[in-house]
Amino acid sequence: MDKVNLAQKLSLFTDHYSPKIVGELNDSYVKLVKLQGEFVWHHHDAEDELFYVVKGALHMRVREKGSEREFVISPGEFIIIPRGVEHLPSAVEETHIMLLEPRTTSNTGNVESERTVREPERI
Amino acid sequence: MDKVNLAQKLSLFTDHYSPKIVGELNDSYVKLVKLQGEFVWHHHDAEDELFYVVKGALHMRVREKGSEREFVISPGEFIIIPRGVEHLPSAVEETHIMLLEPRTTSNTGNVESERTVREPERI
Repeated sequence: MDKVNLAQKLSLFTDHYSPKIVGELNDSYVKLVKLQGEFVWHHHDAEDELFYVVKGALHMRVREKGSEREFVISPGEFIIIPRGVEHLPSAVEETHIMLLEPRTTSNTGNVESERTVREPERI
Repeated sequence: MDKVNLAQKLSLFTDHYSPKIVGELNDSYVKLVKLQGEFVWHHHDAEDELFYVVKGALHMRVREKGSEREFVISPGEFIIIPRGVEHLPSAVEETHIMLLEPRTTSNTGNVESERTVREPERI
């Protein structure tokens, strides 16, 4: 058992949209991700996801019941995307987030793309 | 669905060791807690808990395999206490934390005390 310092862990990688596992509890992983640019629209059939912003600004477009909204999430804020909800993360400047999601979660959800990370690294 | 701003939520209460629910995902709650002084030694039989420090300094004493250690967790850091591990949170100055734990988790775990909060408030 040890504590985890987010800044220290974030200093260990530079790639974007490539989640790293930094903790696990119950059925979930804690991951860190650096984002810049636009990801892909996707959803998760059976998993809710929490996005906590450490640095930058996370833009999250969501589609629900036929309408689309965009949230801008700043450091010290989080958003929970419930299962089934289509979402598109993006960031203009480089943005650092802490993710919390079930171990079974694929980063691109229902979509298979070049951005799919099958086995996230542990750091 | 909406984003959650930790500072805004933390401005809504002042009591210590009284967790407030600010989010839920999968089988877990996200809670905010203000701490000052010492809590009670306890463990959780079947639940891992994540403590992320927002402000102040969280002192966490843990007992494992007959030995005791103390961690001091600062803002931007977290610690995960695995199920079964005896722990004692405390704080000298007022400390603000975000907790992540299964919905079934009682704040005092295996111990019933005046500090047990049966139905945490949602804010």
